Amino acid sequence: MYYFDKRLQYPVRVDSPDPVYARMLQQAIGGVEGEIRVCMQYFFQAWGNRAPTTKYRDMLLHTATEEIGHIEMLATAVAMNLENAPTKVQEAGAADAIVGAVMGGENPRHIAEGMLHKHLLSSGMAAFPGNADGVPFDMNHIYASGNIAADMYCNVAAEATGRTLAVRLSNATNDPGMKDMWSFLIARDTMHQQQWLAVIEELGGKEGTLPIPNSFPQEKERTEYSYAFFATAGDGSAPPAGRWTSGPSLDGKGAFSVFKNKPMGEEPVLGPARPDSGAESQQIG
Amino acid sequence: MYYFDKRLQYPVRVDSPDPVYARMLQQAIGGVEGEIRVCMQYFFQAWGNRAPTTKYRDMLLHTATEEIGHIEMLATAVAMNLENAPTKVQEAGAADAIVGAVMGGENPRHIAEGMLHKHLLSSGMAAFPGNADGVPFDMNHIYASGNIAADMYCNVAAEATGRTLAVRLSNATNDPGMKDMWSFLIARDTMHQQQWLAVIEELGGKEGTLPIPNSFPQEKERTEYSYAFFATAGDGSAPPAGRWTSGPSLDGKGAFSVFKNKPMGEEPVLGPARPDSGAESQQIG
Amino acid sequence: MYYFDKRLQYPVRVDSPDPVYARMLQQAIGGVEGEIRVCMQYFFQAWGNRAPTTKYRDMLLHTATEEIGHIEMLATAVAMNLENAPTKVQEAGAADAIVGAVMGGENPRHIAEGMLHKHLLSSGMAAFPGNADGVPFDMNHIYASGNIAADMYCNVAAEATGRTLAVRLSNATNDPGMKDMWSFLIARDTMHQQQWLAVIEELGGKEGTLPIPNSFPQEKERTEYSYAFFATAGDGSAPPAGRWTSGPSLDGKGAFSVFKNKPMGEEPVLGPARPDSGAESQQIG
Amino acid sequence: MYYFDKRLQYPVRVDSPDPVYARMLQQAIGGVEGEIRVCMQYFFQAWGNRAPTTKYRDMLLHTATEEIGHIEMLATAVAMNLENAPTKVQEAGAADAIVGAVMGGENPRHIAEGMLHKHLLSSGMAAFPGNADGVPFDMNHIYASGNIAADMYCNVAAEATGRTLAVRLSNATNDPGMKDMWSFLIARDTMHQQQWLAVIEELGGKEGTLPIPNSFPQEKERTEYSYAFFATAGDGSAPPAGRWTSGPSLDGKGAFSVFKNKPMGEEPVLGPARPDSGAESQQIG
Amino acid sequence: MYYFDKRLQYPVRVDSPDPVYARMLQQAIGGVEGEIRVCMQYFFQAWGNRAPTTKYRDMLLHTATEEIGHIEMLATAVAMNLENAPTKVQEAGAADAIVGAVMGGENPRHIAEGMLHKHLLSSGMAAFPGNADGVPFDMNHIYASGNIAADMYCNVAAEATGRTLAVRLSNATNDPGMKDMWSFLIARDTMHQQQWLAVIEELGGKEGTLPIPNSFPQEKERTEYSYAFFATAGDGSAPPAGRWTSGPSLDGKGAFSVFKNKPMGEEPVLGPARPDSGAESQQIG
Amino acid sequence: MYYFDKRLQYPVRVDSPDPVYARMLQQAIGGVEGEIRVCMQYFFQAWGNRAPTTKYRDMLLHTATEEIGHIEMLATAVAMNLENAPTKVQEAGAADAIVGAVMGGENPRHIAEGMLHKHLLSSGMAAFPGNADGVPFDMNHIYASGNIAADMYCNVAAEATGRTLAVRLSNATNDPGMKDMWSFLIARDTMHQQQWLAVIEELGGKEGTLPIPNSFPQEKERTEYSYAFFATAGDGSAPPAGRWTSGPSLDGKGAFSVFKNKPMGEEPVLGPARPDSGAESQQIG
Repeated sequence: MYYFDKRLQYPVRVDSPDPVYARMLQQAIGGVEGEIRVCMQYFFQAWGNRAPTTKYRDMLLHTATEEIGHIEMLATAVAMNLENAPTKVQEAGAADAIVGAVMGGENPRHIAEGMLHKHLLSSGMAAFPGNADGVPFDMNHIYASGNIAADMYCNVAAEATGRTLAVRLSNATNDPGMKDMWSFLIARDTMHQQQWLAVIEELGGKEGTLPIPNSFPQEKERTEYSYAFFATAGDGSAPPAGRWTSGPSLDGKGAFSVFKNKPMGEEPVLGPARPDSGAESQQIG
Repeated sequence: MYYFDKRLQYPVRVDSPDPVYARMLQQAIGGVEGEIRVCMQYFFQAWGNRAPTTKYRDMLLHTATEEIGHIEMLATAVAMNLENAPTKVQEAGAADAIVGAVMGGENPRHIAEGMLHKHLLSSGMAAFPGNADGVPFDMNHIYASGNIAADMYCNVAAEATGRTLAVRLSNATNDPGMKDMWSFLIARDTMHQQQWLAVIEELGGKEGTLPIPNSFPQEKERTEYSYAFFATAGDGSAPPAGRWTSGPSLDGKGAFSVFKNKPMGEEPVLGPARPDSGAESQQIG
Repeated sequence: MYYFDKRLQYPVRVDSPDPVYARMLQQAIGGVEGEIRVCMQYFFQAWGNRAPTTKYRDMLLHTATEEIGHIEMLATAVAMNLENAPTKVQEAGAADAIVGAVMGGENPRHIAEGMLHKHLLSSGMAAFPGNADGVPFDMNHIYASGNIAADMYCNVAAEATGRTLAVRLSNATNDPGMKDMWSFLIARDTMHQQQWLAVIEELGGKEGTLPIPNSFPQEKERTEYSYAFFATAGDGSAPPAGRWTSGPSLDGKGAFSVFKNKPMGEEPVLGPARPDSGAESQQIG
Repeated sequence: MYYFDKRLQYPVRVDSPDPVYARMLQQAIGGVEGEIRVCMQYFFQAWGNRAPTTKYRDMLLHTATEEIGHIEMLATAVAMNLENAPTKVQEAGAADAIVGAVMGGENPRHIAEGMLHKHLLSSGMAAFPGNADGVPFDMNHIYASGNIAADMYCNVAAEATGRTLAVRLSNATNDPGMKDMWSFLIARDTMHQQQWLAVIEELGGKEGTLPIPNSFPQEKERTEYSYAFFATAGDGSAPPAGRWTSGPSLDGKGAFSVFKNKPMGEEPVLGPARPDSGAESQQIG
Repeated sequence: MYYFDKRLQYPVRVDSPDPVYARMLQQAIGGVEGEIRVCMQYFFQAWGNRAPTTKYRDMLLHTATEEIGHIEMLATAVAMNLENAPTKVQEAGAADAIVGAVMGGENPRHIAEGMLHKHLLSSGMAAFPGNADGVPFDMNHIYASGNIAADMYCNVAAEATGRTLAVRLSNATNDPGMKDMWSFLIARDTMHQQQWLAVIEELGGKEGTLPIPNSFPQEKERTEYSYAFFATAGDGSAPPAGRWTSGPSLDGKGAFSVFKNKPMGEEPVLGPARPDSGAESQQIG
Repeated sequence: MYYFDKRLQYPVRVDSPDPVYARMLQQAIGGVEGEIRVCMQYFFQAWGNRAPTTKYRDMLLHTATEEIGHIEMLATAVAMNLENAPTKVQEAGAADAIVGAVMGGENPRHIAEGMLHKHLLSSGMAAFPGNADGVPFDMNHIYASGNIAADMYCNVAAEATGRTLAVRLSNATNDPGMKDMWSFLIARDTMHQQQWLAVIEELGGKEGTLPIPNSFPQEKERTEYSYAFFATAGDGSAPPAGRWTSGPSLDGKGAFSVFKNKPMGEEPVLGPARPDSGAESQQIG
């Protein structure tokens, strides 16, 4: 079960409220690279964890719980950036436009157009669980496969795209308060990338975990294709050489090669449609 | 641009058509772990690739193109498993049920209930781009971040969950034709896991790529939190020791530690609602 | 604006309530081939109609309004099929199972498994606006393009897939009441297919409407490719001859031919990633 | 920020694991009536709360935090019900079927058909954030409008449908452990219905909060229509009398009446399509 | 069944067409607070109504039918605001920009950026069933639970968020025609809030309807938790006192209290993964 | 199976990169009228084709394969239009704004607001599989019904809305490179409209294919309603005369007429709610 502290994990300060930046921040809340995704992903991995030990469940709960606090920080930042946002699409006449430009201010209409309409119309100038284009977060993005190595790579993927987004959001603003918030959240993403890869290390690294799942006997797969790069260029040209075209495989169980892809099967011929299947009569044999 | 051969990449054979297994196979077509996902992911990564070399674009095109053939194989397998599927929900009387059981056959009603209704009603006994519960594939699952290391980990995650699914589907059937198809597809997933990790190796491994993105100067992050495991247990208890709680970090740039999480910020106080914002009058300061 | 009559457009009678058939009927309410789709499509086409005459707006309103009554009929049929549906997943022991089979009745557990869980748990044994697999209807399927000929073909497509579904649902049941309902709804789909094609005829048929939109001057398109079938077989083999490979085009403005597809462009080379774009440093030129 | 305790809020015990019941439980996790919805709804209402006092933010955080523990309980219950679930769709012959029936056990194929395929194939026999038909939770269901009275009614609606679902799930099982879990969760839903209505009371009840939002001056609305029931029967018949057809309105600001609806506007005539708008030439005036 | 009148329920007039406002209006058509939602919600509640009387079915049909006319009004308003909208993203040079500003007009490029791209590209300058950010309406938002009290609170929630949106949209414009339209629609939302609450009153008010559903015997719930506010602050601090922390409950069946939340369950330990489940071998006990 | 050529099907050239146009182009990639839709639709129709001949499977594969190359061209065009796009939302002061206007350049903030946030934050300045408002493509839009005539009309509908979109996108730009690309893609849409209608011709035209499906015996439908236009005006007024109100039907099997719609059914009365169904006690008979 869970507890809260009404204080934030790390200070959130906005020096110059900017409703367009509020919109961008939504990507870090409800985008596929965002915090709701990692929070829910770690929770569902924890709650369904079937390893013989509860060690990984415990670790996942520590970090999932940390992530709620990150959503909270970002939601607070969105609301703060929406202070003073316009609620009206004014029909700014020429005079206003010129004055606005000269004043260094901005046309309310212009700003209202850059805002997310969900902020303007639905949320009362606060955050919501969707991305920077207003698309609601969809829980299909939560990966909890029941295979711990697969899940760890899903988590690395989430934190790698998450830190990439965080860096972009930090680069996109000049606001010192926002930059400070990102210096903390980017550091946490650094750690989380490490953390999930460290689980892989603890499980034996590439040799100990690959191929995932490692509980399927490899003699049941067509191993002549297990370490072969399939080349599919129409002119049969070889692909550029890389770590994956020759040399030992990363799991120590094979050697890379290149295979020029070709059809090994035949043209499939399905049975004709049946009389009662709603097909056109011309399709019914 | 692209070409086709009307023959299949690898033979697809169904010895005992089974509409319930057809349903399961849909997960490998249009599930989040399925082939449409990797096909589209690799294509969009290729088409948007901005590395100074076209080497990675080229490699991604080889494999994305291979994946179309995998969707084709699975779609063929679905249609073959739906041969002879019932189109009617019969009101099977007692006699039929008993006979059916004794005959080793099955009640048409029973089978119709286990089928995916999309197969029964919408697709004319053929595959469609959705998962085993009938949920259509949603392209939000396509990761192409513009950061090649992040993308590679997304690809490993996709192939790790993909091979896990493939193993489950192979385990779930006794049909020799289907088992043979899986022996090929599982081998390809083995290679694809290797392939994306090999790109990471080529880029310098963990030290050369982490933290992702490695183009953000780490002095801009609060590095005192970059390698610290945040413990969030309410009773302050330490987490179980692991590779991630002490010792050198995996990128060689720090050392793991444990930090007992605590609020560093204050309770946030947002401004009151404004008169024209549609709030309740009690909220307007 | 709109009015209602509390009576149904056509009688709905269910002789043997069947919760599994209730599930199937949902496809005709909230499936992509269903009645909500056509109802909303015709309404939005009517409300946005910009033809110089209001004739088409008027016609669309007649039929959109008719369709509300069809949703109502189907929703009523769903509720009637759910009368007596089980609310409990009983742990039926062996004795019950045998008795059930002999009695010609069915195991409550078995039935509960074939029901849509939305019916069992969310709707109180009534219809809801989703399909036979429980996927909610998504309004992206509403086509109202602002081009009347495009819209008419969208409507034919909707009624063609709609009547195909209706025929499958009629074929799937032995219930006389349900069969009677379908004899009416299938007739209406027959008319609606005719109706939209009749608009095309009135607008001048294929010659008067193609290519859609016919307001774009064809000299602005590369007309050497406008009536050419592009052959993309990897071995360069010709496609099977058909109405579309030779002879006059259907709009009377060209002649069909076959073109062996080949790349006319070059390999695209995108600029390298920029320093502040969150890419990996290896990608930054 | 947040903390966890690895123990559950209330004991979760499953006496007879049942994978079909595991499926049903998903509705209470990721259905529109489920716990993810209320948890996220209360958090986003708290984080965006703009009342002059932080009292409501504080209250919302207490309850949102409580709800995480409910999701955890249900996810645990799902995993426990999936213990021993089949991983294989066996082709059970006649003998097996008969034996199965006599043994009081069940055909593995039968069970596998009733399971959620997401459980069988994607989650490794654990819970995931979607509903009982496998549809992922969609965050559009989170209501946080910025109007506290509107939000409270949204919360009552969520807890009313939530408790209705909980009662159905309790009724659907005979498992004593599951019944005990529901006796707790149903009690919590009772309280939460009370809690949000109590906020309305504290804000002045119906007279103090209606119409929502109460910050819009009612003289700006056409008040002759503000308390009139619009009758839309095609034959002009009056609606059945009810509390809403006569007598004082509930906000004490008007009196109910019945208005026979009629068109007050004209047939709308939109301008013709413009030449460059992609319309058909017949539409361009 | 249903009828139409080609005239609008209430006049729709746009004095100064504004494509950015057209975008905002979409929220009232296809947003979660919009008219499609209430229309469909009332229809599905009516069509599935199981109360012993048809009185509520009848009432719901009156209002659902009224709502179609509201969608029609708003769709008309969208199309009227899109008259004269730009179809081209011009590369406005400096001269144009200055001239535009001085003329009091606006840069076509600027306007095109504020428009919804669905309007610009897909709908031919007309309304579509999605919200102000272009997200299509998703029918999961339709609540029809089979419990009439729950449904009434869902309806109040819909009309409360709906009127809040309407007030925001009225506040956002200076167009007299649009303001007049809103004065009517806001009045209708006022009535509809009243109407659904009046049903609750008729059913016996809070005492007669709570807890919802009132058909579940309360002795089956753990009533010691049914009126207790659970405090989850990590430091054990009491929540602010409110109507919900002490005093009689609103249903007259209990008294409010505060309960300091604590784990009553144990740490859950799930069984290990099974050999054939696609888990990593390290997880298999 | 499939092959690729790394060169593009047709040259893609962008003379003046424009991030706002990049956004528009997304509609042609991942909009409902876009290229992913037709590509996937033709593939799934091919893979599930059950006509006695493989001729249509073959034809569909030619064109589906062609369409991959179109997605590739458009994805390349998006990336090229995003070259030089801003990554920062600068707080442009008055001086900058004036200078920007005079210079004929544009304010970075202004441009950033018109960009799709997915481009700015998620894709690293490249295309993604979603539309111009950032909504991801949803595979429910793929029509493959198992009825070849229905599918052909679905394809005509797709190419008609597709060419309408292409024309709008060509009209929206002044960039010569982009105009040239569209001159090719518009020509291909012209052909594809022809191609699918030519299949209908080959199958016997309207008389040979209608009503779809033509395998359902028409004596089973209520043919008195099969060619009747249902008039639903509340005042009973006749609809405007059209090709669909009198004269022979298009399939040569009937004659059009007008039928004044009226209720033929009764008011439906559903059974009361059952005690264990979670209804309110007032609903339980």
